[in-house]
Amino acid sequence: MNRLLLGTKNEGKIRELRDLLQQVRGLDLLTGSNLGFSDVEETGETFLENALLKARSVCAEVGLPVLAEDAGLEVVALGGAPGVRSARFSGEPVDYARNNALLLDKLHGTVDRRARFVAVSALCLPDGQAFVTSGILSGRIAQRLTGDGGFGYDPLFVPDGEARTLAEIPLAEKNRISHRRRAVERMVAVLAALLRDGELESY
Amino acid sequence: MNRLLLGTKNEGKIRELRDLLQQVRGLDLLTGSNLGFSDVEETGETFLENALLKARSVCAEVGLPVLAEDAGLEVVALGGAPGVRSARFSGEPVDYARNNALLLDKLHGTVDRRARFVAVSALCLPDGQAFVTSGILSGRIAQRLTGDGGFGYDPLFVPDGEARTLAEIPLAEKNRISHRRRAVERMVAVLAALLRDGELESY
Repeated sequence: MNRLLLGTKNEGKIRELRDLLQQVRGLDLLTGSNLGFSDVEETGETFLENALLKARSVCAEVGLPVLAEDAGLEVVALGGAPGVRSARFSGEPVDYARNNALLLDKLHGTVDRRARFVAVSALCLPDGQAFVTSGILSGRIAQRLTGDGGFGYDPLFVPDGEARTLAEIPLAEKNRISHRRRAVERMVAVLAALLRDGELESY
Repeated sequence: MNRLLLGTKNEGKIRELRDLLQQVRGLDLLTGSNLGFSDVEETGETFLENALLKARSVCAEVGLPVLAEDAGLEVVALGGAPGVRSARFSGEPVDYARNNALLLDKLHGTVDRRARFVAVSALCLPDGQAFVTSGILSGRIAQRLTGDGGFGYDPLFVPDGEARTLAEIPLAEKNRISHRRRAVERMVAVLAALLRDGELESY
């Protein structure tokens, strides 16, 4: 039946994943609104561990192939922080205004502003097989917040070759260059190979 | 330059990988004979961990993209053993005659002979990105050793839909259905996407 469950409950991510995965013919996409699943605590120390943790946990719960992802910001001068703690950089509850303020504060007077967004996609099958892809968007942290679009650290992140922050770049344009898109497109290549081999037929 | 180092020193595996990877245009394949690297101890508890461990370790040593793999046999009635201990199932040094004898012994009188070969390929880039694919060949453990071809557990492993053991199936035919080939072919899809995105250009 070639069913694949998207292991996220974020409506924005679901929309973007649907858009990217429609190029894989014959895949029957399910979401949390078709099939409920429990939230998974992200206890991993890397994006890869967290993405696998989510995909495996939901896959074990529902008995279907599951695609999950984890993503965040790595700042060179901060040794890769905030990394897997990107959302909770300044504590709980998640507050990006506070996260952005903390990031500017920590980089105050720092010349090296290099940073990158990293996304990792993980696909797990009920037979235990796992597939992982990743994507990167390199850039730098601006001196101040600019732009109203996007979310999270977007108002502070200027992609390489750009003068605008991600929050100033129109969504369609941002989606074309995003780390998440790159990770998912590479997973699309894997999914196409799995479909060709009939590996998803029984789900 | 699109260089990719094969993170194995096994001549048979290198030959098979070269054969499978030649369909990826523009890739410059290197092996241990071009560029030396240290052996990596396989301390992981899963094929995925071991494959990543090898790829990451060699990648950190040589500063080039590295493809590594781990593979083994999982027997249902043995709870997935020998798994990552496939080569050393009956102790060190590695001895497959002894491994096969031990496997037959452990399954003596066992009706459930289901088993599968699992292969995991891992690709690591110096920028920290990682990609993982896997492949499975399902079958069953025969009552006795048959056939001279292949290696390892092949004389005991009968693929689903087959009457012959892997050791009785000609190498070219075995390579078409093997778990290792499936894992690598899915990685070929990822490599093609990475080349298209220029992600390997600087290596």
